[in-house]
Amino acid sequence: MASTGHDVDADALVKSSDPTHPANLICSLCRQFYGLGWVTGTGGGVSIKHDKHIFLAPSGVEKELMQPDNIFVMDYASREYIRRPLALKPSACTPLFLAAFTTRGAGCCIHTHSQWAVLVTLLCEAGMQGRKDVFKISQIEQIKGISRGGTGSTEIAEGGRKLGNLGYFDTMRIPIIENTAHEEDLKESLEKAMVEWPETCAVLVRRHGVYVWGKDVTQAKTQAESLDYLFQLAVEMHKLGLKWT
Amino acid sequence: MASTGHDVDADALVKSSDPTHPANLICSLCRQFYGLGWVTGTGGGVSIKHDKHIFLAPSGVEKELMQPDNIFVMDYASREYIRRPLALKPSACTPLFLAAFTTRGAGCCIHTHSQWAVLVTLLCEAGMQGRKDVFKISQIEQIKGISRGGTGSTEIAEGGRKLGNLGYFDTMRIPIIENTAHEEDLKESLEKAMVEWPETCAVLVRRHGVYVWGKDVTQAKTQAESLDYLFQLAVEMHKLGLKWT
Amino acid sequence: MASTGHDVDADALVKSSDPTHPANLICSLCRQFYGLGWVTGTGGGVSIKHDKHIFLAPSGVEKELMQPDNIFVMDYASREYIRRPLALKPSACTPLFLAAFTTRGAGCCIHTHSQWAVLVTLLCEAGMQGRKDVFKISQIEQIKGISRGGTGSTEIAEGGRKLGNLGYFDTMRIPIIENTAHEEDLKESLEKAMVEWPETCAVLVRRHGVYVWGKDVTQAKTQAESLDYLFQLAVEMHKLGLKWT
Amino acid sequence: MASTGHDVDADALVKSSDPTHPANLICSLCRQFYGLGWVTGTGGGVSIKHDKHIFLAPSGVEKELMQPDNIFVMDYASREYIRRPLALKPSACTPLFLAAFTTRGAGCCIHTHSQWAVLVTLLCEAGMQGRKDVFKISQIEQIKGISRGGTGSTEIAEGGRKLGNLGYFDTMRIPIIENTAHEEDLKESLEKAMVEWPETCAVLVRRHGVYVWGKDVTQAKTQAESLDYLFQLAVEMHKLGLKWT
Repeated sequence: MASTGHDVDADALVKSSDPTHPANLICSLCRQFYGLGWVTGTGGGVSIKHDKHIFLAPSGVEKELMQPDNIFVMDYASREYIRRPLALKPSACTPLFLAAFTTRGAGCCIHTHSQWAVLVTLLCEAGMQGRKDVFKISQIEQIKGISRGGTGSTEIAEGGRKLGNLGYFDTMRIPIIENTAHEEDLKESLEKAMVEWPETCAVLVRRHGVYVWGKDVTQAKTQAESLDYLFQLAVEMHKLGLKWT
Repeated sequence: MASTGHDVDADALVKSSDPTHPANLICSLCRQFYGLGWVTGTGGGVSIKHDKHIFLAPSGVEKELMQPDNIFVMDYASREYIRRPLALKPSACTPLFLAAFTTRGAGCCIHTHSQWAVLVTLLCEAGMQGRKDVFKISQIEQIKGISRGGTGSTEIAEGGRKLGNLGYFDTMRIPIIENTAHEEDLKESLEKAMVEWPETCAVLVRRHGVYVWGKDVTQAKTQAESLDYLFQLAVEMHKLGLKWT
Repeated sequence: MASTGHDVDADALVKSSDPTHPANLICSLCRQFYGLGWVTGTGGGVSIKHDKHIFLAPSGVEKELMQPDNIFVMDYASREYIRRPLALKPSACTPLFLAAFTTRGAGCCIHTHSQWAVLVTLLCEAGMQGRKDVFKISQIEQIKGISRGGTGSTEIAEGGRKLGNLGYFDTMRIPIIENTAHEEDLKESLEKAMVEWPETCAVLVRRHGVYVWGKDVTQAKTQAESLDYLFQLAVEMHKLGLKWT
Repeated sequence: MASTGHDVDADALVKSSDPTHPANLICSLCRQFYGLGWVTGTGGGVSIKHDKHIFLAPSGVEKELMQPDNIFVMDYASREYIRRPLALKPSACTPLFLAAFTTRGAGCCIHTHSQWAVLVTLLCEAGMQGRKDVFKISQIEQIKGISRGGTGSTEIAEGGRKLGNLGYFDTMRIPIIENTAHEEDLKESLEKAMVEWPETCAVLVRRHGVYVWGKDVTQAKTQAESLDYLFQLAVEMHKLGLKWT
């Protein structure tokens, strides 16, 4: 509901009647994610890299009410904002989204506060399902919705096999990093996890949520869905006394 | 969001202003199933047999965004695609949908990744509620929403009794087959289960989901709903220390 | 999706542009209840008494797709249908809805298959929270949403107190009757429970669901909501090791 | 669905085509809260202070159906109603909303019957997670969505830090007061809790729900969301054997 002010040229960057324009997509994704409980209370966020520009949701805006007019645009090469709504502030997630773009070649990065993600990190922390610093699950069909490295090939073979994705008998491993007092301070450990876990499409943040990326919006979003499905299933499995691997 | 290309005659097969046309129905059902959590992350699918044609959702498309233009059409007699969107690939579920049409005389088959279905197969696998290879539940009213064999009579007697359906004191039995690395490889065991369990309207796939069929869309969909209700109830009953039969 | 046929005069009974007309209200309530998981797979139903007529949802129709054209109308005095869609059959719930109208002076009766209702009857059956034949809960604020007898005064005092409703320190008691093979056979035990429990606004049916009534649609619906809230809370309380009374 | 009657001048107070007008906002918030399960069965409520006026949802109206015409308007200085729909009664929450406006300088107060809030008060009552009279949780990222005192600064620093809010390593403490037979009788203990817990943005009411406030609608609503997230997470943590602090 914040009012915004900025120069006219920059506005053209976020004004489009095309629903697949990044500024429109961020708004529709945020509405959808609000319905899924991923971005409650202004938490979470989305960023899209498009050509030479990074489109970013602002800090502190109700996600289900976000408008294209609220979107920040950064020049990727110079890291300078070429559009910033005057009344708003950039999201603290910005350096983390940039990490996915630079370190992993992502085109979209999604950050959710999904409770299933948080609960999975708590169960790992308590040592209840194996190692504390990585979530592992295997032999669940939905694992096949996850590409190797997050930005892997989306090629589908004639029979429907997704060639760049994990297989049913693979173990999906998502590293967990420790939370920090300030979100931007996650940058170093997030980048370290991205380097150390080249096959992961996401990094879990303990007691906080998850960062998921993909080479484009569709890949990032469908992976975020598949991951959240697996986190929820894992929590329910734990309640029922079942092991994840 | 994939672009599609194909010859013009075939397009007429999926273009209709009638919401009950199979190509439109598949899209509206996929949107509804997405809301139910059944087809997360491009998982799951729907197929409808109409006259001499099979209408099929493609592989890898976000189900809530599916458009009639994305639908594959197969000639039932020759098993050849008479319409295929150029940029898309057929679903790996195709041979499994065909099994329901040929082996059970179905007119619609629905495949979901519902977590309740997966959890039920996990509880059976762990031997926590009886046999490992079949889900059984009895004396729950919703069982009466399931027809014998899945494609049984939908006749309703004057007082409201569904004549072709299971009764309250019947035990509903849904066989569970083991998952395979590749979905199409489920065909043999799925067909075997269809033959060995003539009364079932569905086959559960361990750690994967469920295939449900009906003689038409309404019967398949309402049975999918009743089954999912029963799977969810069974999981909650297990949490509360209650037996399914 | 069933086609319907009937004479023209009777159609006027269900055709109205007023959204509060009983035939329209039944359809909008059914859509709403479908979203709440109360009428999955054609289960459940709603009936409204208006002047000398009873409006009834049919058997076997998908509740979220119901149209005014699908509605049965019965003459209350003669118990004869004065409008019946040719392709449809009356609901097996009809004698049970009539019981609420005649025995309790209700103007609306709602039947749901809510899983929370079913789970509460299962927990009672197992003797886990007291008596087997009655659900009891006390000292939960939402109890104040329940009127004494279901059709009690809806008068609200100046300060907001609902004069005809249960108080916070009252114990809400909802009787549980045993399910039967055929829904219409519940009539006798349902009427018996209505007589024996004059303060109840509802009757639970073991392993089946609940019948809730009110003097009008608003009272019946808001009581159905408050009850379902209490059933869900009771199940969650049980999971957490907490007693209901 | 109640009919309303009142004099014409007062109607201008609630008639506006601006969706951010308080009378319109209360209605849209109530619809949204109904979808979240916060205001089931006419429970819960919202009040907004705007200039010299208090806008209040009435007692006993279905929240998802509320219309601007149903809204009460009180003159803040004199505490007299300057608009009251004739057929409706003021909410019993009114003195409690006023407490937030006077004691805490709030501009909006939200009251929910969220089951997560109720369950948290029950777990505290049972002594299962520490003290009985206060809900405490720490080191969960969503805590950062809560302002100190509820009406703290909403200033956001350049990097995205919310300067007036709790930090990740802070412990969030929400006092719990005991419920009373009549809602208006909560006034004294609610005001006492507001005085004794200057850092809290909310007061939990045992076996009843929660009152949350903010300096404006956005702050109150996003805090209500963040709190509900934390209540739900706390209940799930308890089920999994995890401690809140």
